[in-house]
Amino acid sequence: MTDLFWPGDHLAGTLMSDAAFLAAMITVEQAWLDELVDAGIAPTAARAVLPTDVGSDDVAQKADSDGNPASALVALLRERTSEPTSRWLHRGLTSQDVVDTAVMLCLRDVLSRLAEEVATQVDVLAALTETHRGTPMLARTLTQAALPSTVGAKVAVWLNGLLDAADPLGTAVLPVQLGGAVGTLAAVVELTGSVDGALDLTDRTARRLGLTAASPWHTTRAPLTRIGDVLAGLCDAWGHLAADVTTGSRTEIGEFAERHGGGSSTMPHKDNPVRAILIRRAALTAGPLAGTLHTAAAASVDERSDGGWHAEWATIRTLARRTVVAAAHTTDLVTGLRVDADRAAASLAAAGDLGGEQRTMAKLVDRQPKQTYLGVTDRLVDATLDRAAHYRKDAP
Amino acid sequence: MTDLFWPGDHLAGTLMSDAAFLAAMITVEQAWLDELVDAGIAPTAARAVLPTDVGSDDVAQKADSDGNPASALVALLRERTSEPTSRWLHRGLTSQDVVDTAVMLCLRDVLSRLAEEVATQVDVLAALTETHRGTPMLARTLTQAALPSTVGAKVAVWLNGLLDAADPLGTAVLPVQLGGAVGTLAAVVELTGSVDGALDLTDRTARRLGLTAASPWHTTRAPLTRIGDVLAGLCDAWGHLAADVTTGSRTEIGEFAERHGGGSSTMPHKDNPVRAILIRRAALTAGPLAGTLHTAAAASVDERSDGGWHAEWATIRTLARRTVVAAAHTTDLVTGLRVDADRAAASLAAAGDLGGEQRTMAKLVDRQPKQTYLGVTDRLVDATLDRAAHYRKDAP
Amino acid sequence: MTDLFWPGDHLAGTLMSDAAFLAAMITVEQAWLDELVDAGIAPTAARAVLPTDVGSDDVAQKADSDGNPASALVALLRERTSEPTSRWLHRGLTSQDVVDTAVMLCLRDVLSRLAEEVATQVDVLAALTETHRGTPMLARTLTQAALPSTVGAKVAVWLNGLLDAADPLGTAVLPVQLGGAVGTLAAVVELTGSVDGALDLTDRTARRLGLTAASPWHTTRAPLTRIGDVLAGLCDAWGHLAADVTTGSRTEIGEFAERHGGGSSTMPHKDNPVRAILIRRAALTAGPLAGTLHTAAAASVDERSDGGWHAEWATIRTLARRTVVAAAHTTDLVTGLRVDADRAAASLAAAGDLGGEQRTMAKLVDRQPKQTYLGVTDRLVDATLDRAAHYRKDAP
Amino acid sequence: MTDLFWPGDHLAGTLMSDAAFLAAMITVEQAWLDELVDAGIAPTAARAVLPTDVGSDDVAQKADSDGNPASALVALLRERTSEPTSRWLHRGLTSQDVVDTAVMLCLRDVLSRLAEEVATQVDVLAALTETHRGTPMLARTLTQAALPSTVGAKVAVWLNGLLDAADPLGTAVLPVQLGGAVGTLAAVVELTGSVDGALDLTDRTARRLGLTAASPWHTTRAPLTRIGDVLAGLCDAWGHLAADVTTGSRTEIGEFAERHGGGSSTMPHKDNPVRAILIRRAALTAGPLAGTLHTAAAASVDERSDGGWHAEWATIRTLARRTVVAAAHTTDLVTGLRVDADRAAASLAAAGDLGGEQRTMAKLVDRQPKQTYLGVTDRLVDATLDRAAHYRKDAP
Repeated sequence: MTDLFWPGDHLAGTLMSDAAFLAAMITVEQAWLDELVDAGIAPTAARAVLPTDVGSDDVAQKADSDGNPASALVALLRERTSEPTSRWLHRGLTSQDVVDTAVMLCLRDVLSRLAEEVATQVDVLAALTETHRGTPMLARTLTQAALPSTVGAKVAVWLNGLLDAADPLGTAVLPVQLGGAVGTLAAVVELTGSVDGALDLTDRTARRLGLTAASPWHTTRAPLTRIGDVLAGLCDAWGHLAADVTTGSRTEIGEFAERHGGGSSTMPHKDNPVRAILIRRAALTAGPLAGTLHTAAAASVDERSDGGWHAEWATIRTLARRTVVAAAHTTDLVTGLRVDADRAAASLAAAGDLGGEQRTMAKLVDRQPKQTYLGVTDRLVDATLDRAAHYRKDAP
Repeated sequence: MTDLFWPGDHLAGTLMSDAAFLAAMITVEQAWLDELVDAGIAPTAARAVLPTDVGSDDVAQKADSDGNPASALVALLRERTSEPTSRWLHRGLTSQDVVDTAVMLCLRDVLSRLAEEVATQVDVLAALTETHRGTPMLARTLTQAALPSTVGAKVAVWLNGLLDAADPLGTAVLPVQLGGAVGTLAAVVELTGSVDGALDLTDRTARRLGLTAASPWHTTRAPLTRIGDVLAGLCDAWGHLAADVTTGSRTEIGEFAERHGGGSSTMPHKDNPVRAILIRRAALTAGPLAGTLHTAAAASVDERSDGGWHAEWATIRTLARRTVVAAAHTTDLVTGLRVDADRAAASLAAAGDLGGEQRTMAKLVDRQPKQTYLGVTDRLVDATLDRAAHYRKDAP
Repeated sequence: MTDLFWPGDHLAGTLMSDAAFLAAMITVEQAWLDELVDAGIAPTAARAVLPTDVGSDDVAQKADSDGNPASALVALLRERTSEPTSRWLHRGLTSQDVVDTAVMLCLRDVLSRLAEEVATQVDVLAALTETHRGTPMLARTLTQAALPSTVGAKVAVWLNGLLDAADPLGTAVLPVQLGGAVGTLAAVVELTGSVDGALDLTDRTARRLGLTAASPWHTTRAPLTRIGDVLAGLCDAWGHLAADVTTGSRTEIGEFAERHGGGSSTMPHKDNPVRAILIRRAALTAGPLAGTLHTAAAASVDERSDGGWHAEWATIRTLARRTVVAAAHTTDLVTGLRVDADRAAASLAAAGDLGGEQRTMAKLVDRQPKQTYLGVTDRLVDATLDRAAHYRKDAP
Repeated sequence: MTDLFWPGDHLAGTLMSDAAFLAAMITVEQAWLDELVDAGIAPTAARAVLPTDVGSDDVAQKADSDGNPASALVALLRERTSEPTSRWLHRGLTSQDVVDTAVMLCLRDVLSRLAEEVATQVDVLAALTETHRGTPMLARTLTQAALPSTVGAKVAVWLNGLLDAADPLGTAVLPVQLGGAVGTLAAVVELTGSVDGALDLTDRTARRLGLTAASPWHTTRAPLTRIGDVLAGLCDAWGHLAADVTTGSRTEIGEFAERHGGGSSTMPHKDNPVRAILIRRAALTAGPLAGTLHTAAAASVDERSDGGWHAEWATIRTLARRTVVAAAHTTDLVTGLRVDADRAAASLAAAGDLGGEQRTMAKLVDRQPKQTYLGVTDRLVDATLDRAAHYRKDAP
């Protein structure tokens, strides 16, 4: 499974792949079946380990007829299990329960992988900040030389942006979806014989799956749009960092370089900032994907939507995989980032007299200009390092 | 100031209007000036009440040359104040400080208005849920009759979706932006003579403005994208509700009607669900606007961006005003919503035998089908009403 | 290769698959090599049939390092060919030439498939229009019963919308991309020894590939955005048709039904309009994808972009495949569309007195109301059928 | 009327302003009234010049109740005219006819203004291309120094991109919308007494308004999405040019500068490329707006949409005005663009040995490297100048 249209896609491994989606759907069916048996609703003889070697080809065709992959999978699992398992399988659930819960299971793996990448990046960026706390660098605004600053200050801004984006990773809620045909759990109440029994069953299933118990959200899609927003926010933070790196890597600036830039078959002098370019690519497409999740959510209607729901799956899959790839690229980029302190100093020197503002200020307060004009840079660096340390301590 | 291309725009009043933006920018300059004097940096004679009768026409032309409205405003304020006020005004700040902080002040008013609208909606929807807890209604999935449910259950789902969307309203952080030319507060340190003095000054200014003190976020734009995401999430929730109302208002269904639907000049029999239609309109455009904020954030570069920053202002303004208009429309819609219990009952009856699933379940557990097939509906209603009550109690 | 997150994806077959992309890139290299030899630039001994059994796994890894799949492929082809073929392969080209031209080759197959689907749809819709020219149906505006119309009129509107969207299919220009490293064909001039020789070589290559000769468009991306816009326009037309079908399929309306609607495992009475739902899904996501192509185009810079270019490939791939799937779904939908003339008549009757407007008009001109109130419906139907006939005659 | 959130907005003057929209709607009503009288349907006494001093405040409130501004306007016009004018006004039309046709009238002015700006830009860019045909400049790919080129070649690429984007301006179709309540012209047939009479009336009205006669497009929105796509395409072309200018204006590169860059209040050394930055801003937001028009079009349903139609108006307004502002900024930018040939030569020299590719090629064909390595640059320049000359000759 490759995606030559999105170089680096393999770095997301099987996350949100068809195989992972299938496995997650089977995990949901298995958990539900186990709970039905444990609760004494299905007979003990129904207990079984569901087959996991289901191929996506077998499901794809029927998924098209049904409009979703869950019923196809259920049909297949029923064929491949025997009575009474086949009879009890999936009872009480609706396709949307299986799809939505499986998507959440897949997203849990995505968020977990992202948390790991972010942790590494936070460490690396914190170290870079510390190392280059005093390395002079030109600050630029609106593309123009502005004032003196330091490499550490720039990296601290990246780090702060990353921490802003990563904050919601730790508190993201991944709810189970268990509502039955129309979100009322009618079939489950019929099976268990009581409302309490039904709610107990869904709570237990949530716990077994490691997801949060929740009211059905068949047509209220904030659980998904929120995750989409978090993913886009991470891509924004990395996109910003990458834009600074592509800019700083320009031949005429040369203050940053990637560990091994991409070469050119015929132009041996080139050293392309490929990681940064591919990260920028991801950042360009993340916002519209997160926006599409909102549009799909807003199109919710009835007790199961006529298209909005269906538009979500591939959108969150694509956004999630691209975010993971961008995460991996960013980890690689920051880990191997080469800072050319000499070029940075040279840019600063070449910018000429940047002291106008300082002299104006000094004159206002009738004092001699200070030795440096770095403002609270050091304090911002400290605050950021402190924030990074807290993040790492609190992280799972 | 009207917007005939967006009927209902006047319902957002002056929120994020040019006048409000100007006033907010002047508020920022005033607070900063006051703090400069209070801190003993600017002379007491500089204390002044800045003029607030600045017209946007005076600013617009120069804003185009400068690329932002803040420097134009500062120039104007300097003309209209006398020494030493004119000399001290804005000292230490950069245009981006003024624009970003002013946008946050404007957004505070927007969020506050939204919280009020949501509070009313929560009350009205909670009452509707209670009233129609037992009113039979057909649940539909994928446009087709599915199972029996109740009007109360449907309204409870709307309410849950609204509460999901409204949750972040209470915890939204609105940071001040005070970083100076390149985010290092270099000029402020020069003015105050010390890092502590500079940070003290910015903290005090934040407090005076009622915003959160924060590290500069010139190129790390999560504070803005997060608010954009919250606004889009609210539009999603209302869009869903509105989609159910337009559907339920269809001539052939007739289970919902607006208080006063829009008439037609030549077709007196018509009763158009105009509120719901205008809400749907807003929901269709919110996602891409929130997505654009992410794209702009991801384009951040240097210590002030070359376009990304500039793309944000009108985008968040448009998204914010539309969200407020949609809020007002939704409040109006739910307050006047007419439920036709007879038509709802008739739809249910006309749908014919919906008992297949129930019979299958009952047979599985070898029991007679229960009297009703409403599942945990009642419990979901209770849980939602409970959640609504908590929300109202905790709300500001 | 399946995509369980986008049911129906297999209907797009290998169009714009990794295999098709690889094959297209090899086709480009082959054409170029052939022309180099034919022109007497490369020696006759360099003539060779390039291997086509290249696996995407072999390319994917290196594509990530290089930032695009072309150089990886070239390296591989060089390994798998012998001297002097390996030495001459790709000489004068740059990676972007290969990628862009290959994408155009892939898109040619997509547009050709779309033209076939549209042709069938035009025939089927024209026949439906004719058949139901006189079948009474209620026209609805803003969800409300409005005036009498006919099924034929509604289908004619779909057909007109489809023809509007399909018009640009016939005139779409697919340009070759042959510019060398920076779009100046410097290497090719060096190889051929003359400007004329270089331009002759590129023209011949374009002809061999069946693409349009064109100036390099490395950073002027209208050739791609235009195709994206056409694809989105088609999805719009089908989305509109599908929205009418999901609405008309509602249990309470029942005027339309799909040949075989999707069933429900536990609710045997259901007949879901699955084709229409999946078409709507595609239509919801097409606009943002086309928009992303514009954003990527606008981010063009230098003589090869630092991310904008890279964002295009997967975006156009996804948009193209989804458009093909939506095309196939629409063909299936219209071919099997069942019109329930009795239900349509019943809706019309149930809508009650719709004659108010007519009476007002008749009174204005002091005449008795006409027998019917169908306006120019018949003429619109004729005009549309005429347009459809012309389209079919002119189509390739 | 200012927009401080979008500096430069005033450059679009009254194009697509509320005043222009109102005036256009009145123009539509006037044309229709005139034709009704001319055709002898309305009595001669109904002939009147409709009031044009309608304030948007009077319309805005009622537009919110009705869901669109047309019925409010009609009510107002009826109040302000006397019998029999007031009775005959608007007869046969529906609100959507008035709104859609008025939007097309407004867009005609927009496209006409854009054509003027483009004509100037084509002239200026053609002159720049000619002037700098031989000015050496470094070509860069993926941010890195690549090969020698010329300033003329770069400007020619901008010009080519502009011409690609401008091509559809000349052939854009602006259709009248005249369909009556449900697109069947039923009321008009009732008034005229015949189908021929009705179609004759609509044709004459189209001619009078200078728009294209067309079948009703109430729910088939390609006429609008196509214009949106053209606008976005223009923004893409200017965005690319602006990205090259912001890059070339960087302090470290300094090859381009705007006539008068934006200064900084406290940093006198700054020379910000403000035009280019504001153009980039527009380009960042255009794609999603064009995409939203597609999403709205795809949501079309029934004989008048329940939200999709309403989402279009402000979206096309915003996109159109921003495109005009970007056009004006670009004209200003290219007219005043300063090329620093010395800095360009210096960058090229500083890039070091770029001759690797050339030597490889020369060796392959066993020749001495040519004097220069500019490939077909000169021929591309000629072809572009030729294309520009044709464009100017064919332009209206």
